[in-house]
Amino acid sequence: MRRIEELTRKELIQLKKTVDEKYEGYKKEKLALDMSRGKPCKEQLDLARGFFDNIEPLISEEGIDCRNYGVLTGLKEVRELFAALLEVEAEEVIIGENSSLAMIYDTFARAFSHGVAEGAIPWGKLDKVKFLCPSPGYDRHFSICEFFGIEMITVPINEDGPDMDLVEELVSTDESIKGIICVPKFSNPTGIVYSEDTVNRLAAMKTAAEDFRIFWDNAYLVHDLSDKKPILKNLLAACKEYNNPDRAYIFTSTSKITFAGAGVAVFAASKNNIAYMSKLLSIQTIGSNKINQLLHYRFLKSVDGILEHMEKHARILKPKFDLVLDIFERELGGLGIATWTKPEGGYFISLNVLDGCARKVVELAREAGVVLTPAGATFPYGKDPRDRNIRIAPSFPPLEELEKAMEVVSTCIKKASLEKLLEEKESATTIY
Amino acid sequence: MRRIEELTRKELIQLKKTVDEKYEGYKKEKLALDMSRGKPCKEQLDLARGFFDNIEPLISEEGIDCRNYGVLTGLKEVRELFAALLEVEAEEVIIGENSSLAMIYDTFARAFSHGVAEGAIPWGKLDKVKFLCPSPGYDRHFSICEFFGIEMITVPINEDGPDMDLVEELVSTDESIKGIICVPKFSNPTGIVYSEDTVNRLAAMKTAAEDFRIFWDNAYLVHDLSDKKPILKNLLAACKEYNNPDRAYIFTSTSKITFAGAGVAVFAASKNNIAYMSKLLSIQTIGSNKINQLLHYRFLKSVDGILEHMEKHARILKPKFDLVLDIFERELGGLGIATWTKPEGGYFISLNVLDGCARKVVELAREAGVVLTPAGATFPYGKDPRDRNIRIAPSFPPLEELEKAMEVVSTCIKKASLEKLLEEKESATTIY
Repeated sequence: MRRIEELTRKELIQLKKTVDEKYEGYKKEKLALDMSRGKPCKEQLDLARGFFDNIEPLISEEGIDCRNYGVLTGLKEVRELFAALLEVEAEEVIIGENSSLAMIYDTFARAFSHGVAEGAIPWGKLDKVKFLCPSPGYDRHFSICEFFGIEMITVPINEDGPDMDLVEELVSTDESIKGIICVPKFSNPTGIVYSEDTVNRLAAMKTAAEDFRIFWDNAYLVHDLSDKKPILKNLLAACKEYNNPDRAYIFTSTSKITFAGAGVAVFAASKNNIAYMSKLLSIQTIGSNKINQLLHYRFLKSVDGILEHMEKHARILKPKFDLVLDIFERELGGLGIATWTKPEGGYFISLNVLDGCARKVVELAREAGVVLTPAGATFPYGKDPRDRNIRIAPSFPPLEELEKAMEVVSTCIKKASLEKLLEEKESATTIY
Repeated sequence: MRRIEELTRKELIQLKKTVDEKYEGYKKEKLALDMSRGKPCKEQLDLARGFFDNIEPLISEEGIDCRNYGVLTGLKEVRELFAALLEVEAEEVIIGENSSLAMIYDTFARAFSHGVAEGAIPWGKLDKVKFLCPSPGYDRHFSICEFFGIEMITVPINEDGPDMDLVEELVSTDESIKGIICVPKFSNPTGIVYSEDTVNRLAAMKTAAEDFRIFWDNAYLVHDLSDKKPILKNLLAACKEYNNPDRAYIFTSTSKITFAGAGVAVFAASKNNIAYMSKLLSIQTIGSNKINQLLHYRFLKSVDGILEHMEKHARILKPKFDLVLDIFERELGGLGIATWTKPEGGYFISLNVLDGCARKVVELAREAGVVLTPAGATFPYGKDPRDRNIRIAPSFPPLEELEKAMEVVSTCIKKASLEKLLEEKESATTIY
């Protein structure tokens, strides 16, 4: 296939006619396909069918009646299970409610009202709080930062993580930079995994802010799609190694293991941080839902149990990712109008179209009945500086819907690209 | 029985000897009885045994897969159920996670970070925020206020609610008084129910603060112990009547209906407030646990279903309350050293001992193996100005333990009272 930019004006017009006809054809089909969020599909949720098979008695291994009040930081066996998964100690773990996002929000809220440590200044008392936001990244992280009035600094993300030269430079001089927020494994949306070197540098770097924190949203820690299973270095271990043990705030959840919206969320950090958090948390709640904790433990059993379960997820998800990649290759390969990631895990494919075309593509797709994540969403303030990134979430639709949706999206990309290129040629003609 | 204050010094010494012997006897029994918190007992929790009988399919009446993400404010049928219970509209309700305390905390946190309405000044930006705290009241409310640096103003509580003359006077002039926090029905710990007049005055009163809010923790709304079933006037309706619709923040939960710590929490307020809250909440979470919501709906079914279920609770709790009252009457009646409430519902009996004796009684009980709620806990900052109030929580212990614990407590009250009276007599002797 020839690169579109090599085509003559006449050839472009000819191609545009074909593409426009195809697009109008899709519009007539009155499609209604939603690919906006990284939701598990029905078959994935069905994998947790045995979740309620082992209910009686609702008593923990320590003899705690899970139907009653208490146990602020979570049941012992549940803390142990997730500690093993995160390669930390049980005393370094707090089990929350159903949402790691809510735990991240709470952690910010507490940092703003009370500071991140005994004696630390509450961030809400400061004139300015800034955060580093590797981008493209997770839109809901950016929303939380914006909500708390945090100034977000976009940091480009490479194959091995954020641009660490830039990160180190920024944090070393600006005391108002209080942290960085990121998805370090199968990053949302780029799918990359932070390298050992990146993790070490994050753990070791000198920060002007004494109370600098890394919000490490390890949402996809066991969400491999293939047998390659890349390893993410344990951030807490690294922070201890480099003598910054309190820098790491690690979050994860079972939202994409058991039930999205009815899983358990997990926070891991140094014992010092856990002690401080527990003290603050004790004002907020008597404890999170222990029945849900207990049933999770009984269903997942062990780290091996979790890994086995995740292989079942992969068997459902892999064909969907493959389908998207196949269609992109077939429809867009060699045209020079789009690039996309080929992730080994996680929930997203990150698609870059020609500069200035992402918003247009999403709009065209919407008009043809395919809802994508809004363009710009993967950048702070919803503003993609090059207007080129689109997050593709293949998990939810059935294969046949996904195929149709990706064909529509490919056509929209061609249409937007051709319009852009023709416009450029027009203006070039006008000027000379 | 003669009032103890009428006894001569000799008689007091004689009586003290008997009481001390009895107390030492209890100490030798090495008791370990915990009556510190209002926890449901095992038999009450067993009432929800059928909770997990009706699981498949986990699909709501609207066809929503409860295992997946979404539905920020709660399932329609669940909002409708609790709206009916609270006599509000479904659109005036948000369903939360397992803890109304956490919802109250969150509501404070949002008021501090973002204000209580579009355009309102965040309370965190103000030099001073004060709250009215009818007392004796709920210690965890006071802890939340203290956590956020709120200056708590103690307001005495009468048979029909807080001293409304004082409340009206305070709020009318002091703009920094941003709200009042209370348990209006079967109040913790006094057991009183706010009268219609009290509710109307709270709804109607002129407040210097435009963004004044009533944090109405209706924790015991269906927790009657007898057939008297006192009625609490609907605060939201009253606030609408008096043209202050946004003043009411109503909270409740099923913690003491289904499972303590694994129930669902409920927030009710004007549609204006709900819209604002939903906007803020959308940054914090994708939604609370819908599986737990759905199972609650299937188990409780309707307001009648809830009321029938609560009668089963009452049949377990009533004998416990009766036992405490009987022992107090038998051991302390007519002595003039203690008064106590005889609640028609809720979880507590409020006990007043002689001024300056509450802390001593709790300490004596602890030394004899009976843990009570700390003295002072029922007042802001843990400081009971008269050191006389003790919260008795009869729900958790089995009857025989409760009997023993109350006998111990009665003995401790006698011992502390006798010590106080003898001391007073001593110092009187010394002076003259």
